[in-house]
Amino acid sequence: MVTAEHIRSLFQRYVDLVTRGDFAAIAELYADDATVEDPVGSEPHRGRDAIREFYRASAGTVSLALEGRVRVAGKEAAAAMIARAGGMVIETTDVMTFDDVGRITSMRAYWSPDTIYRE
Amino acid sequence: MVTAEHIRSLFQRYVDLVTRGDFAAIAELYADDATVEDPVGSEPHRGRDAIREFYRASAGTVSLALEGRVRVAGKEAAAAMIARAGGMVIETTDVMTFDDVGRITSMRAYWSPDTIYRE
Repeated sequence: MVTAEHIRSLFQRYVDLVTRGDFAAIAELYADDATVEDPVGSEPHRGRDAIREFYRASAGTVSLALEGRVRVAGKEAAAAMIARAGGMVIETTDVMTFDDVGRITSMRAYWSPDTIYRE
Repeated sequence: MVTAEHIRSLFQRYVDLVTRGDFAAIAELYADDATVEDPVGSEPHRGRDAIREFYRASAGTVSLALEGRVRVAGKEAAAAMIARAGGMVIETTDVMTFDDVGRITSMRAYWSPDTIYRE
C-alpha cells in the first residue's frame, strides 16, 4: 500500500527532476498507462512514452518548487507549486493519483494565463 | 462566461462563510445538482439540500483561510487552505468546478489524518 510519506517524497522528487530537466527519470515516476493533463483543459498525454516526450519538451525550462505542504488523501494528493522562468512566475497546483506500487496514474496541473505574472 | 476574477472572489467568500458558519449561504454557492466530496475518498454529498445539511454540521467549527493564491484553469480551480480549530491545524486543498453562471458544480477536499497536526 502506498504511504503518505512515499507520496510526499515523490512530489519533492518530481519538482527536482522537472527543474533538472531529467525527462527520462520523470517518465519513470508514471505508470505505463498514466495520463498527464497540463494544463487542466488541454488534451491529456496518454501512456509513458507520450508523457516522456511531453517532459522532453518542457522539463528543464523552469525552476519548480513546492509551495506549502502536500495534501495527501489516500491514493490522491494535491500540491501547490511555483515555477520560475526568465523573470516570470507560473503558479500551479498539481493533482495526482497513485497506484498500489506508488506510481503516478494521473496528473492534472491547474494553471492558466491567469496564474502567470512578472516577478 | 465565468471569469477567473469571479472564481477567485468565490473562494474567498467560501472560506469566510465556512468560518462564519453560514451554511445556508454556502449552499447557495453550489449548483442544484452539485457534489461535495470532503475529504477525497469519502461518499460524496449530492444536491444542494444534502450539501446544506453537510455544512450545517461542519461550518462554523473551524477558522478557514486561503494559503497562497487560487489556481484558476478555465472553469476549474484549486486552492490550498488552512483550517484551525482548538489548537489543531488541518491543511486542505479544495478543487472546484463551475458552471457557466459561476456556481460550484463539484468540490473535492484533499485532506486526511496525514494533513492534521497540533499547532
